[in-house]
Amino acid sequence: MANREDPWLLTPGPLTTSTETKKAMLRDYGSRDSAFVEMNTRIRERLLKIARVADTHVCVPVQGSGTFAVEATLGTLIPKDSKTLVLINGAYGTRIAKILDYLGRARECLETPEYVPVNVKTLAAKLSESPDITYVVAVHCETTAGILNPIEGIAQTVADHGRLLIIDAMSSFGAIELAPEQVPYDAVIASANKCLEGVPGMGFALIRESLLTTCKGNAHSLSLDLYDQWRALESNGQWRFTPPTHVIAAFDQALNEFEAAGGIAGRYARYRVNCDTLLAGLRTLGFQTLLPDALQAPIIVTILTPDDPNFEFTEFYDRLNYKGFAIYPGKLTEVESFRIGCIGRLDSEVIKEALAAIETVLADMGITNCRPEKSETAIAS
Amino acid sequence: MANREDPWLLTPGPLTTSTETKKAMLRDYGSRDSAFVEMNTRIRERLLKIARVADTHVCVPVQGSGTFAVEATLGTLIPKDSKTLVLINGAYGTRIAKILDYLGRARECLETPEYVPVNVKTLAAKLSESPDITYVVAVHCETTAGILNPIEGIAQTVADHGRLLIIDAMSSFGAIELAPEQVPYDAVIASANKCLEGVPGMGFALIRESLLTTCKGNAHSLSLDLYDQWRALESNGQWRFTPPTHVIAAFDQALNEFEAAGGIAGRYARYRVNCDTLLAGLRTLGFQTLLPDALQAPIIVTILTPDDPNFEFTEFYDRLNYKGFAIYPGKLTEVESFRIGCIGRLDSEVIKEALAAIETVLADMGITNCRPEKSETAIAS
Repeated sequence: MANREDPWLLTPGPLTTSTETKKAMLRDYGSRDSAFVEMNTRIRERLLKIARVADTHVCVPVQGSGTFAVEATLGTLIPKDSKTLVLINGAYGTRIAKILDYLGRARECLETPEYVPVNVKTLAAKLSESPDITYVVAVHCETTAGILNPIEGIAQTVADHGRLLIIDAMSSFGAIELAPEQVPYDAVIASANKCLEGVPGMGFALIRESLLTTCKGNAHSLSLDLYDQWRALESNGQWRFTPPTHVIAAFDQALNEFEAAGGIAGRYARYRVNCDTLLAGLRTLGFQTLLPDALQAPIIVTILTPDDPNFEFTEFYDRLNYKGFAIYPGKLTEVESFRIGCIGRLDSEVIKEALAAIETVLADMGITNCRPEKSETAIAS
Repeated sequence: MANREDPWLLTPGPLTTSTETKKAMLRDYGSRDSAFVEMNTRIRERLLKIARVADTHVCVPVQGSGTFAVEATLGTLIPKDSKTLVLINGAYGTRIAKILDYLGRARECLETPEYVPVNVKTLAAKLSESPDITYVVAVHCETTAGILNPIEGIAQTVADHGRLLIIDAMSSFGAIELAPEQVPYDAVIASANKCLEGVPGMGFALIRESLLTTCKGNAHSLSLDLYDQWRALESNGQWRFTPPTHVIAAFDQALNEFEAAGGIAGRYARYRVNCDTLLAGLRTLGFQTLLPDALQAPIIVTILTPDDPNFEFTEFYDRLNYKGFAIYPGKLTEVESFRIGCIGRLDSEVIKEALAAIETVLADMGITNCRPEKSETAIAS
């Protein structure tokens, strides 16, 4: 650890990236130069290939954070006179509903608690009784709790009812496969700086081409008009407005490393071991994690705040940060919690070091009881 | 030149940045970590100080390109029921009008040719006869032609008529002063990667605080809602959505270098010499530049395409690029042209090298006549 200037980022992002990915930012590219144009074409093709939708979908990148990409996709695809159903079990689903309100697009919500996955039967019933709903928007992995939603059942149900599906796969894309044969979707949205381990500053959507061709004039925003952005990229390979050249160069390198490490299967395997190591270690220390293992995505783990009177999150956070590990506050609405991520350029050795640091900090703070006030059973019942 | 992997970027951006600015991106910051939060507070304070409006304005950064910042500012400040006057003499003014159309905000335009500055008398007359216009939007330096608009006269006229002024100073901020005593404005918009010599990926607006406090609920977009972004930054120092951490770290370093090099005065002086060197050299080679010197901003120079039958821009560009200099295509609507920028981390020695490369390329291509088909007088008359 002594040679690291920055802590390991055990968060939902921005994440720890590889040295080579960061070094790719040591060059200045001209945004209209052929080498840079080729890099963008290559990145767009690789993302389609990773998702195995190159025959049906197109890749449209956009500047900004993941939320920018989500808003751009919603605004571009959803006509002003349509109604959308948002499947919510956390802050990111709630944010999607908020975006639709900004956009003036009618929406309804199907909401479950943060520790309960989307209910596919309820979704089916809702769609059956609501022929006016044209779009369904689902979050694959909701990092609020770290829950994995039943995306295959959701996609099949939406397809069976002849509706369109947009998936926010921000925190899962590249680590948890969305096989197009089992999970048909019209658009999937993700970011450079989650499981693909680039740096923050751009997101992208993979959109069914036959749908996108019908979307001219939908968008509420010039900057976030993905139809317009797509047409520009197709015509000359260039972004419409100054692209984040260094971020894109880093992403290209991150994708090199992604492919060299075995693609989705390789990334899933590493994160799975990270997550299992983290869960086992936390439980050994007496912590209670929120989710049953079957619902726990190997992305980020929610831990219930210990009932011990000596536990104070800010101090716990600061002490861990000083030891080289940045964790994350909780986002649950009902109970106190905090979160530890297991994605980014780190392996189970780092997780073990983090667990050792946590053990030391607990001792230093005089915390002996890591159990929460309410048990998991009490919350989930 | 032998040690440079990339060409010098003689463009309106992205630009050549310093090695130290790029090296600042070799660290991964947690977006909620105190060191990063402090960096953002510091950047926001420095930008206000550069503009000398810390007592009246607040700084709101936003992810994306300069256009994102322009759209965010327009959408946040301009109420849905107001009318805006856009002063146009190039592609960026035209884009502002297009954004207002996307946003459904009523607008009128005062347009002059690309080589003619905004006419302050016409503006005064227009405002006198149009009491329904509440906002005026002006572009300080229009990089379409490289023209400097009479911003002091514009600002005084808008103030005299009691209207609000938004200035797009994307390509001039940091190099050409907007003294608040002579150029009162309600908002000025710029980007990290122009004259402040950061990397692309974020922009910012300096907005009169007493105005911004009235703007809740105006925005058409969650991602681009600068009121919401400002409230979040004021409450905890954090961006609402994942910030481009590496881009921000580079910007902080770029601002260190900006201050160390004498701030606006220092930057103006270097660009001025770059521009004068470029203009003199081009004229010696027989080229004709578009603008009279009094209208030429020291940012980017528009050169009329030579009438020589051997001149072909793509080949000229490629040959110069091979020699280490990336120039830029023209954007004029009426005549063929190309552009050469004089901003970014480069000095007059680089400009002299570029001129020498141009001379060699002209000889290699067998170009003997650099005069355009139409003379400057013919165009400007």
